[in-house]
Amino acid sequence: MAHIRVVTPVIPTGLTKAEDFEGILATEDTVDFVEIDRGPASIESGFDEMLASAGTVAKIIEAEAAGVDAVVIDCMDDPGLRAGRESVSIPVLGPGEASMNLACMLGHRFSVLSVLANMRVLFETHARLYGAWDKYASTRSVEIPVRDLHAQSDLLKSNLLEQALLALTQDGADTIILGCTGMLGVAHNLQTDLQRAGWDVPVIDPIPVTIRLAKLLVQSGISHSKAVYPTPRKKLMQGYDGSALEAFRGS
Amino acid sequence: MAHIRVVTPVIPTGLTKAEDFEGILATEDTVDFVEIDRGPASIESGFDEMLASAGTVAKIIEAEAAGVDAVVIDCMDDPGLRAGRESVSIPVLGPGEASMNLACMLGHRFSVLSVLANMRVLFETHARLYGAWDKYASTRSVEIPVRDLHAQSDLLKSNLLEQALLALTQDGADTIILGCTGMLGVAHNLQTDLQRAGWDVPVIDPIPVTIRLAKLLVQSGISHSKAVYPTPRKKLMQGYDGSALEAFRGS
Amino acid sequence: MAHIRVVTPVIPTGLTKAEDFEGILATEDTVDFVEIDRGPASIESGFDEMLASAGTVAKIIEAEAAGVDAVVIDCMDDPGLRAGRESVSIPVLGPGEASMNLACMLGHRFSVLSVLANMRVLFETHARLYGAWDKYASTRSVEIPVRDLHAQSDLLKSNLLEQALLALTQDGADTIILGCTGMLGVAHNLQTDLQRAGWDVPVIDPIPVTIRLAKLLVQSGISHSKAVYPTPRKKLMQGYDGSALEAFRGS
Amino acid sequence: MAHIRVVTPVIPTGLTKAEDFEGILATEDTVDFVEIDRGPASIESGFDEMLASAGTVAKIIEAEAAGVDAVVIDCMDDPGLRAGRESVSIPVLGPGEASMNLACMLGHRFSVLSVLANMRVLFETHARLYGAWDKYASTRSVEIPVRDLHAQSDLLKSNLLEQALLALTQDGADTIILGCTGMLGVAHNLQTDLQRAGWDVPVIDPIPVTIRLAKLLVQSGISHSKAVYPTPRKKLMQGYDGSALEAFRGS
Amino acid sequence: MAHIRVVTPVIPTGLTKAEDFEGILATEDTVDFVEIDRGPASIESGFDEMLASAGTVAKIIEAEAAGVDAVVIDCMDDPGLRAGRESVSIPVLGPGEASMNLACMLGHRFSVLSVLANMRVLFETHARLYGAWDKYASTRSVEIPVRDLHAQSDLLKSNLLEQALLALTQDGADTIILGCTGMLGVAHNLQTDLQRAGWDVPVIDPIPVTIRLAKLLVQSGISHSKAVYPTPRKKLMQGYDGSALEAFRGS
Amino acid sequence: MAHIRVVTPVIPTGLTKAEDFEGILATEDTVDFVEIDRGPASIESGFDEMLASAGTVAKIIEAEAAGVDAVVIDCMDDPGLRAGRESVSIPVLGPGEASMNLACMLGHRFSVLSVLANMRVLFETHARLYGAWDKYASTRSVEIPVRDLHAQSDLLKSNLLEQALLALTQDGADTIILGCTGMLGVAHNLQTDLQRAGWDVPVIDPIPVTIRLAKLLVQSGISHSKAVYPTPRKKLMQGYDGSALEAFRGS
Repeated sequence: MAHIRVVTPVIPTGLTKAEDFEGILATEDTVDFVEIDRGPASIESGFDEMLASAGTVAKIIEAEAAGVDAVVIDCMDDPGLRAGRESVSIPVLGPGEASMNLACMLGHRFSVLSVLANMRVLFETHARLYGAWDKYASTRSVEIPVRDLHAQSDLLKSNLLEQALLALTQDGADTIILGCTGMLGVAHNLQTDLQRAGWDVPVIDPIPVTIRLAKLLVQSGISHSKAVYPTPRKKLMQGYDGSALEAFRGS
Repeated sequence: MAHIRVVTPVIPTGLTKAEDFEGILATEDTVDFVEIDRGPASIESGFDEMLASAGTVAKIIEAEAAGVDAVVIDCMDDPGLRAGRESVSIPVLGPGEASMNLACMLGHRFSVLSVLANMRVLFETHARLYGAWDKYASTRSVEIPVRDLHAQSDLLKSNLLEQALLALTQDGADTIILGCTGMLGVAHNLQTDLQRAGWDVPVIDPIPVTIRLAKLLVQSGISHSKAVYPTPRKKLMQGYDGSALEAFRGS
Repeated sequence: MAHIRVVTPVIPTGLTKAEDFEGILATEDTVDFVEIDRGPASIESGFDEMLASAGTVAKIIEAEAAGVDAVVIDCMDDPGLRAGRESVSIPVLGPGEASMNLACMLGHRFSVLSVLANMRVLFETHARLYGAWDKYASTRSVEIPVRDLHAQSDLLKSNLLEQALLALTQDGADTIILGCTGMLGVAHNLQTDLQRAGWDVPVIDPIPVTIRLAKLLVQSGISHSKAVYPTPRKKLMQGYDGSALEAFRGS
Repeated sequence: MAHIRVVTPVIPTGLTKAEDFEGILATEDTVDFVEIDRGPASIESGFDEMLASAGTVAKIIEAEAAGVDAVVIDCMDDPGLRAGRESVSIPVLGPGEASMNLACMLGHRFSVLSVLANMRVLFETHARLYGAWDKYASTRSVEIPVRDLHAQSDLLKSNLLEQALLALTQDGADTIILGCTGMLGVAHNLQTDLQRAGWDVPVIDPIPVTIRLAKLLVQSGISHSKAVYPTPRKKLMQGYDGSALEAFRGS
Repeated sequence: MAHIRVVTPVIPTGLTKAEDFEGILATEDTVDFVEIDRGPASIESGFDEMLASAGTVAKIIEAEAAGVDAVVIDCMDDPGLRAGRESVSIPVLGPGEASMNLACMLGHRFSVLSVLANMRVLFETHARLYGAWDKYASTRSVEIPVRDLHAQSDLLKSNLLEQALLALTQDGADTIILGCTGMLGVAHNLQTDLQRAGWDVPVIDPIPVTIRLAKLLVQSGISHSKAVYPTPRKKLMQGYDGSALEAFRGS
Repeated sequence: MAHIRVVTPVIPTGLTKAEDFEGILATEDTVDFVEIDRGPASIESGFDEMLASAGTVAKIIEAEAAGVDAVVIDCMDDPGLRAGRESVSIPVLGPGEASMNLACMLGHRFSVLSVLANMRVLFETHARLYGAWDKYASTRSVEIPVRDLHAQSDLLKSNLLEQALLALTQDGADTIILGCTGMLGVAHNLQTDLQRAGWDVPVIDPIPVTIRLAKLLVQSGISHSKAVYPTPRKKLMQGYDGSALEAFRGS
């Protein structure tokens, strides 16, 4: 039995619901989710990531304090991943990192299908950091902002298929990663559409696989290395009064 | 409910037992294992890997035909991984590949603790193939042949600790991978010993995590990309009469 | 005439003074400095960097609004560099990035002399991001926390010399970067000491060269590429009321 | 005087003839060839390579025992290269490895013209293993299966010219490697056709250059490093009775 | 006050004038220029670079002897850079190296706009040497020989814009480097044209930024590392009588 | 029958003799050698390489004009390689490039044993240019200047053995390259000494293997790619009156 907490690193907007995470693990496991108090309404830039990081880390600290077994950050940019891992000992996973390293096990080159074109640089940067660059093929985008993903589900579906086919035929990709956790649930469909078009390739839906990886780590008794993510020294800080970040306030 | 088959790519020697794979998955899942008919008694070289590959692929083909959901090759050299994946559609996982890509999610640089020094080149080669080279730190060895691992468990334990500490202090590693599936079960101990020595780092026991990854793929409805591992054309072959490899015999 | 603003990304502690930045540019230029309202007392981890980033970006936005020509972030971790560049059009420089790319012009392999050992991973990560990895030799540390650097100046001096010599003789380095902006002013001394020891190699003092690079960009009429650092979309945000970050608040 | 043996790693099909290897070395040298007893009729996948490897290594062991000076494997996939080198001390060369490293001496970026599109991944994998990745431009294919190469020589000729021109103009290549040893003899023609089209670039015919490299190694008294390819330990094996592989059977 | 000397590594042709370098530094600084006695009329190949190198190094030696503070080589191929740095202690800068490393600070991927297509290989080679390969996107060319650049300024302008747009849209570039010092002065125009076309990206004019970097190094008291560029041993030489290269003549 | 010319890129010093190149090829082939008119007495720096390059290229142009089939430059720094290849169509080989790419075929990682420590940077630079970096282990030096190599043959022998053993045990090398063509003839000895010490690894004597590679290219009808090394445009030049370089003088 594992208790996994999803931290959705945006302020409450109603887009994310508890049902989104049902059925991913076995019935004896618990998957709950929280949104953050301090941050933006969606993450589509480095600026948004910066806005979100402190609030996300606070929720990660709270999760460990509450006895949660592992945390999954619900955004492909993995905001707060480094600082969050430094702050706790339980596994903290980002779907960006998890998807890319999983893709490395399934094929030779992967492409990310992102919401907006400006995310390309972030994914390329992350592929380098995560040790996945040698298998990175490309980032392509559907050009639909995060908050319109649900409303424009038909456009999303057709744009995903179009961009996936371009990734496979033009960029040498053989494995597809959905580049936004807001695309939750459309992977299976895209995989089937691609199969009909003659491409029998995996489409990775980041959140379910990351939650399952979190459980895998809990079961296996391993977490991120504290040699890379050492616990921060306590020191004076300002501007975070009342938040869980104060766990590391010192003098 | 998933049915995972472990293919131990050596001829029966009594070293591997059904109990080795108990308790790794939930009780409703099935994990069984088979050894191969054609091959060596252990794998410690490229020559051994060559001897083992045909027999391993035959067992992978048989597993799919028997309705198994995924296959795990029980050797860190991943013999037969490419040809096995070409032969079937169900996920085929090698613990060498799985451990390295998992290590990429836990730290910044990993080291492999191998049985014998000559395996270094194989692990370096594989790290490049698997897209894990950017996070590869080193391979170190305990200098105990595979078949003596059980008998010399005290020596194994002390050599692992010694080499792990050298990897952490000399090679810049922060994550440890056990480099032989014959070391099954000693990871937890080593992790605890390292923690006592002041190193809070993950030690990856390849077989349990690979079996759990196999289940993760089955649950997630994804497998290796057939764009990279296309089904072989049938053609004339000689020397494999009566084996499952004949599935691809043509004229 | 250029107006360069140094943003010291820590809350006021008295360690940084206006005099620190005198004499770096010509007399007709202006170099002023501000500290941040929200953040930690020093930056020695990813956690500290996270605490500092929002406050730093706020000061960068304020600087542009005040007509400043370019901003230099006063910390080798370059907190807020990406989000800051997205937020404004004037050049924003980080001494970590600037020093590494400058080192690439002076030699074949550079080493960073850091305050604490745990910074190695951050510098290795940054070297990859900044396109400087091919010339990265090593990070070594003097093992003195930031806030003790001034008080322990003799120990700092001897440890820097010792670690620099190890970098040159053991790691194949030929160029040295001081790894903390709190080491301001000791570079010349170290360079002279090394010369006496037979090593005629450059020692880069990050802050002066970064301030001069800022002026160079202003003179040359170039800034960071907005194709990489596009202006963020305005959207709902929470927790940053009253700060300059609200410039990007939308509905 | 050198005695070079070509091991054609397919079962006899009549496609390869002794005349193919005449005139490549000086008259005092000997070049003979053998086909294998166990394997496929052609090599167009990782599966085929797996089928071929044991038979190929057996012939390599026999060659050394017969006093041959060096062995050339007659297939661009280099089946059995690693295990073959472990098994003997005389030089064993693969045309895939030899061509790529030779191409590195002739230009800046090379392309491989393969039989079928699915070989791209194998060549990319090999380029990484062989230390030739930095000069790899692309793999393109003529889409003619191995066994039809002779019958469709006009189509082969025109497709090679078309793909070579695309490699030069689209992929930045400046050096061409024929990607199948079954294309033996067409390189000179292609080189002339390209020259007429304004491209004065080398076209490497893999088998002749590899046979000449084999002689070069024999003359120079050097072979592959046994530190990388150590002789296998003898051990129990099953399924290879009566083959030369039994040289390494132990108890 | 700094005295920077520009060494234009071609024989006098009237194309370069003292005015070209006016206004780049402050009025109290001196920027003068010399052409070489031995060399070609322009540099468009490795052959030309070879012809130019001895004459360029001679002028670098003369500059140091005359009390100059730093030297800038006036050609994007950086002829004589290594040998020149070995010969003196004052900073010697090449605009090819300086532009590429500066571009690394401004964006994620840069493209070079060269005079002729055959320069692509030289720029790719240099990007590798200079540690800038990870951020290299492409080289594109305007197809105008150096000596016609001034006469064909309209064609140059339109070709630069066309190629820059292709670099941004096809090659993933976000930062532009002018690939010939003979294009001096057109950068600002191109930057404005690109801005009008919706691309707010920096265009680097190599000579002004390199001269300013030279001053930066002089101000900062650092130069290239003599550990990489050690002073040559004196020895017998022939064919350079009467040139400054004789400074290193020995017996 | 092939006519190979060795161009020794130093002025006549009596160290190189016609006998040095006897017995390397078959009796019907011709190997002759010339020294250069303009250049240094030995090559131990980038400065020396610069001094030697024009004289070397002149001899390469003369060789082609005289009907020679291929040229080998007799120095591990490969002076004049690029410009020489641009100047002619016949193969021009450098032993630095040839040895490194040959080493890539023999093992996993090679080390170069150089004369002096300052050559390390040159070999590292060249390994990158030649596409051999992925297999580069280290450069070590015997610390004997070129002109003393013959006189100090005992010291050379013992230093080579000592450094080779360090390369194998400390640097992970498995293949050795002699780093100076002045070490001609000692490779066999070193290989035997290493074998006695338990290391069965190849030691590459650069000049014989490069001459044999030159013949291989002539036999195979291939040369360097003129797409990378295009013939220079003729143009005005100064300072090379009376030399073969005037072949490319224009107006």
